[in-house]
Amino acid sequence: MRKTLVVTLATVAISVAALAGADGHADPKQIEAAVKARQAHMQLYSFHLATLGGMAKGEIAYDAEAAGSAADALVSLVQLPQGGYWLPGSDNASIENTRALPAIWAADSKVGEAAGAMVEAAMAMQAAAGTDLAALQGAIGAVGEACGGCHKPYRASAN
Amino acid sequence: MRKTLVVTLATVAISVAALAGADGHADPKQIEAAVKARQAHMQLYSFHLATLGGMAKGEIAYDAEAAGSAADALVSLVQLPQGGYWLPGSDNASIENTRALPAIWAADSKVGEAAGAMVEAAMAMQAAAGTDLAALQGAIGAVGEACGGCHKPYRASAN
Repeated sequence: MRKTLVVTLATVAISVAALAGADGHADPKQIEAAVKARQAHMQLYSFHLATLGGMAKGEIAYDAEAAGSAADALVSLVQLPQGGYWLPGSDNASIENTRALPAIWAADSKVGEAAGAMVEAAMAMQAAAGTDLAALQGAIGAVGEACGGCHKPYRASAN
Repeated sequence: MRKTLVVTLATVAISVAALAGADGHADPKQIEAAVKARQAHMQLYSFHLATLGGMAKGEIAYDAEAAGSAADALVSLVQLPQGGYWLPGSDNASIENTRALPAIWAADSKVGEAAGAMVEAAMAMQAAAGTDLAALQGAIGAVGEACGGCHKPYRASAN
């Protein structure tokens, strides 16, 4: 299953590359919808990571069922088709209201690898989260690193 | 698999009921996060339904791969754990910025059944979308009805 997901994410990367190779002029409404969708997707990561991160830090009482559910959600989210979110022309040099850097669409973009790392981290969290708090805590670092693996190189700072 | 999903959604309904039976006073920040998450989830439905609906109406050229991907996304979305979105006290009589009616949390709430209908419709769409345009068109009505199955009884009008 892990291999299937990594292949899925590689396909996403290929789709992004293919879109970037097209004429590069999506309809502004399509661009807006794509940006809203990817931000909604990030919102859902944030929602479930708040549960897992809160438990890891001891700010929320550990609950195996809730932790497992949040980790299941992460895995479902990484599996969700995402190629349509990343239309060429939806970078922060082209439009407002996004922090997505043009480097995402560059020929040497490593977004596919970064997405693959997120799949791996989410699946490791899924295996760990429902076991016990120590297992969850052992898996949370890799999830945070996987978030940063895209955000650091490919997202503009908030300020 | 279909049965599993229906059971999953029934579990969501039970979770909502269980939450409603608790003290009913979630933290305002938790409420806000939950509302944002469910609205993000709806945004993602909207994004993928725009593809499927656009193709069904002939506004977007039918593309088997894109249709299949959008339908896969719908199925992933209906499978996503959603119990945490529906905190008691997050209805439109209690807070701003939501159209969720208190009836969702009522003892006679039928949200579990409505969610089950959405699962069924999404899975039927997944089986149809990549086949051909006629199959997609045959499946889109049930998806729209399933959306309405929750929105009509449980969402306030936009005006």
